[in-house]
Order: sequence, then C-alpha cells, then structure tokens
Amino acid sequence: MIIDCHGHYTTAPAELQKYRDGQIAGLKDSANVPAKANLKISDDQIRASLEGAQLKLQRERGTDLTIFSPRASAMAHHIGNETTSQHWTQACNDLIKRVCDLYPENFVGVCQLPQSPGVAPANSAAELERCVKDLGFIGCNLNPDPSGGHWTSPPLTDRHWYPLYEKMVELDVPAMVHVSSSCNPNFHATGAHYINADTTAFMQFITGDLFKDFPTIKFIIPHGGGAVPYHWGRYRGLAQDMKRPLLPDMMRNNVFFDTCVYHQPGIDLLFKVVPHENILFGSEMVGAVRGIDPETGNYYDDTKRYIEALPLSDAQRQKIYEGNAMRAYPLLATRLAAKRG
Amino acid sequence: MIIDCHGHYTTAPAELQKYRDGQIAGLKDSANVPAKANLKISDDQIRASLEGAQLKLQRERGTDLTIFSPRASAMAHHIGNETTSQHWTQACNDLIKRVCDLYPENFVGVCQLPQSPGVAPANSAAELERCVKDLGFIGCNLNPDPSGGHWTSPPLTDRHWYPLYEKMVELDVPAMVHVSSSCNPNFHATGAHYINADTTAFMQFITGDLFKDFPTIKFIIPHGGGAVPYHWGRYRGLAQDMKRPLLPDMMRNNVFFDTCVYHQPGIDLLFKVVPHENILFGSEMVGAVRGIDPETGNYYDDTKRYIEALPLSDAQRQKIYEGNAMRAYPLLATRLAAKRG
Repeated sequence: MIIDCHGHYTTAPAELQKYRDGQIAGLKDSANVPAKANLKISDDQIRASLEGAQLKLQRERGTDLTIFSPRASAMAHHIGNETTSQHWTQACNDLIKRVCDLYPENFVGVCQLPQSPGVAPANSAAELERCVKDLGFIGCNLNPDPSGGHWTSPPLTDRHWYPLYEKMVELDVPAMVHVSSSCNPNFHATGAHYINADTTAFMQFITGDLFKDFPTIKFIIPHGGGAVPYHWGRYRGLAQDMKRPLLPDMMRNNVFFDTCVYHQPGIDLLFKVVPHENILFGSEMVGAVRGIDPETGNYYDDTKRYIEALPLSDAQRQKIYEGNAMRAYPLLATRLAAKRG
Repeated sequence: MIIDCHGHYTTAPAELQKYRDGQIAGLKDSANVPAKANLKISDDQIRASLEGAQLKLQRERGTDLTIFSPRASAMAHHIGNETTSQHWTQACNDLIKRVCDLYPENFVGVCQLPQSPGVAPANSAAELERCVKDLGFIGCNLNPDPSGGHWTSPPLTDRHWYPLYEKMVELDVPAMVHVSSSCNPNFHATGAHYINADTTAFMQFITGDLFKDFPTIKFIIPHGGGAVPYHWGRYRGLAQDMKRPLLPDMMRNNVFFDTCVYHQPGIDLLFKVVPHENILFGSEMVGAVRGIDPETGNYYDDTKRYIEALPLSDAQRQKIYEGNAMRAYPLLATRLAAKRG
C-alpha cells in the first residue's frame, strides 16, 4: 500500500470559505459569531471537490491512501480569539470526517487544533480527543506559531506544550508540525514560513530534552524536514559541539520527515543523509506548488516519481510507502483493519 | 587565488567583549555610555587572535584571502538603542580595518552596519560610506531583522530599505544578508535564525521587484542559500505559479549563494541546481560549527575539500574561488591591485 502522509483539503467547497468569511466579518461584532449550523455542504459537493483533484491524482499517480487534514494555510490561528478558532476548527475537522466516511478507502483523518495565540495548548486537548475517539482520526497538525509569523509562543520543547503532549501520548497519535498562513509580511507562507518552521522545530528538538520526558511521542516535520537535510553536516556539527545526541539517535522513534521536496536532487539528498526509517512518503497534493515542471513534464508535487527513481530495494520502498507510516501513526493499522471490516 | 567570501572575526581579543559588556551594563544608566576610547587592543593581541586561528586555517586549507567582517552573532542590533549600535559598530569595524592593515594579503574588510529596530536604514548609510571610503572595505552585512528574531522590519524588497540600497549602489558594494543573534527563544541563532533568514530573503527576492529598481545591486545569501537549493523545485514551482521570473534570471547579476554547507551531499546538491555563476566560495571559519566530522576526519567547515571533490573544470573552479567574487564585490579587484602596489 502507498500511503501519502501529507494531504490537506485545499479543494473544499466554496461554502467553507464563505462560512469563514462570515466568521471573520462577525469578529467586528462579537455578538454575531456565526453558528456551525450555517455551514451547509452536500455530499455531492464534497465528491465533486475531490473527484477531479485528490482522487484523480491518487489514481493517476498510483497512491492508495492519503492522511488527510484541513487546509493548513487556512487554519490561521491568529485570526480572532479562542472561540473563533474552536468553531472554525470543529467545522474543518467535521468536514474531514465526512470526506473519510465518503471515501474510506482513500482517506484517513488528521485534525486541525483550535489553537490561538496566548491560549494554553491544554485547551486543544478536548478537540484532539473528540477527533481521535469520535471521528476516528489518527493524528493532528500542531502549529508551533499560532501568531502567524510573530513566533510569540515558547519553543515546542517548553513545558508550555506538555498538557497537549500528554493527551497525544494518551491517545497514541503523532503531530505534524505545521504552521499556517503568515500575517508577518516578511514571510511568504509556503515559500518561507512553512520551511522556516520545519527548520526551527528540528533545531528545538536537537537542543531540548523533550524525548526524555515523552519517549513515545512522535512528530512529523513536513516539507522534507525544512532546511535540515541540506545542512545535515551543520546540524550534526552543532549537535556534536553541544554534546547532544547523534541526529539518528535523536530522531529514531520520535521524529519523521516527509518527502514533500519537489525535485529529484532534493529527494536524492534526503535519502542520502536521513535514516530511511525516519522518512514517510508524502506529496502535499493539491498544495503549495500546483504546476508542471517544464524540465520533467510532470507535476512538481508528484513526489512518487522521485521515490521511484531512487535505487531502493523493495523492502526499503515498502518502509517509505507504508511501514514507517504505520510506526509514525500507531492507530493507522487499527483504523485500516476496521475499514476492511 | 582562492577567496573565502565569508569570514567573521569570531576570535577577537577578549577586550572587545569587555567593551561590549561595559556598553550593555551602561544601558541601565544612559549617562554612562562607554566611550570608544575605552577599547584598547594592541597589534600583538590582534596577531595572536588570528595566527592560531584564521591564518593557520588559511595556510592549512590553502586559501588566500578572506573577506572579513565583525562577528555576526555579536552585532546584536536589538540591544540598546541607535547610539549603542553606532558605537559598537564603529568599534567592530575599526578593528576589522586594523586586521586588514596588519595582514593585507590575507584579509579584506566588510562592515557591520549600525542598525537598530525601528531606525531608518538611511541612518546606516554614513557608516557604510566611512567603511568603504575611509577604511577600504568592499561590502556590508545587512541584517534583515534588527529585532533579533521578532521580524518587525519590512521585507528587504520594501522601500523602507531603499535609502541604504541607494548608498550601496553609489559605492558599488554588495550586502551579505546576515542576521545576528536571536532574542526569540524559538530560534537557535546558527541552527535556525541564520538559515531561516536566508530562506526568507530569497523568497522576498522572488516575490518583489527590487532588481527592477536597482538593476546593479548585489546580495550574497550566505549558508548556501538557506533551504533554497534543497527546495529548488518548490521555488521554481512557486515562481512559476506566481508568473515571476525564472530563478536563474532573477539571480543572474544580483543574488549569490556562498558554499557554507558543511557536508559533501549538500555541496553536491548546491552545484547541481544553482547556476555556478552565482556561487561564491565561503567557509565562515572560524564560525558556527567548529568540530571535526568523525565521518571524514576533517573540519565540518573545511568547505574547500567539498569543492575539490566536485567534478569541475579548472575554469569553473576559478569562478567559484575567484571570478564570481570579483563580480559580486566590484571593488575587490581595485583593492587587490592597490595592495599589490
């Protein structure tokens, strides 16, 4: 089975954005927060939004299952207040649940969290629990910077985040470290903020002792680990100078990179330096880069082609496509067994 | 000639830090700003600080000339006020001038700028002019984030920076985009903030029209261009989706990456994807990573070894070591001719 660990519902029906627009408009008048009931999307609308996009691409590219979550750039935790984020998050997660119910063979859910700048991460635990226990999701996207580019929260290794981590461990679900849109004009969302956040998180994991406190917790750092594989020597050297663990030891059961790197030389490098046990197949289609690479004639984000071009054994390829995902998402095997009845 | 475009005076005599400590202590009492005259360093102290470090490594590694600037992490533009930064910057630049006078064959100067959060970049122009005209320097380090990790300044493509750019163009000197230490606990300085700033600047250059307004201005993005070469497909794809110029066209005469990438696979990737005309040899020794790589037995930052291992022609290698630096630093050839009398 070929599992794409990184897909967002970027093609959701326009009604979702209308709901969000109404919610944002309502922020001017706090009495006028739109109710969730205002969001009406039919099953046919959901089908139409996926058939020509994610499902078509799954078929064309030969992938089986996408670990699917709400659109990351639209999480925008910096907009409004805690209630805004709660309502928006629930609406987005409920919609992912409907996608997974309509296409149980094609999608399994990962949730957005109702984060908000200055709000304790503990307050996200209830929605995580709802999504895992009631909706059947297998993980969450954790935004290390709910401020949207101002980086006002403590590092991911700070005890600030521990109450949420305790819930993750209790539920046995990982977090993909994934920022949202940027309201800081310095940072283009998908071209700078996303990649910077990945790099930042990895360096925090090098310097902190998070995995002593949570030996079983798991994080996926998307977009190929940000800048890390390209600067693998730098990170090895920094860890060495600081007398921190070797990178493969630090990552072993706790940190995974996906393959959302949109050209062959980048993927080649990733597989050259990062332990294969810590790499999950991912494409983030339909996502940040939607065009066709004129140099190859293929979609930039058709990352399966790059993996296919690697000199991997069948056993190695199986790990990248499936085995490692089963390790990173401990609930995945159970969910798949349940789907198969 | 082998020109290392990226060296900082990280081994300056302890008196420099004592001066800085005094300056910072003086901030509590604004009447007590230490005068520049308080800083006394002898020529012998300068020689001792370099002989066993940068000069020894130049000899051992077989490099000739280092483009040398004050310690980047110590610029700390976020500390104190505009006067603090002015005094500290002048002291640091004057010391670089003394290094260059003592070892004219080995070093040529690049200056720190007296930036400060919220202070107009125009206010840095006078120190740049002093360094170029009076001290013989050939460029500057420009901090895109004088706030030290809070990113409160406008993007580098914003008109906010134009008065300084006008001075750069008038003097015909480039800027290396180089942040300093981070006072945001999210960002490890050399492991996250530096690399993030490089990535951020490149994405700003993709989206902005800076090189239409300043067709001859030149920027060096250090640390191998941050995350950019690893995500070259992503950046090509983003530029394509936004109908922006091809990356090699955008970079051609305006943007250069150095080779401060501390492992062979990273350097291999850099040379595979980035036009060789836009790569400058650099090591940043003695810098962020000081150890020896147990996998090779060589210093991580001995980047010349990685270049030597590349299948380049002599002409290509000459560009990387010298020719491209002459293009990126237009005053370099004149300075070298003057040194040789």
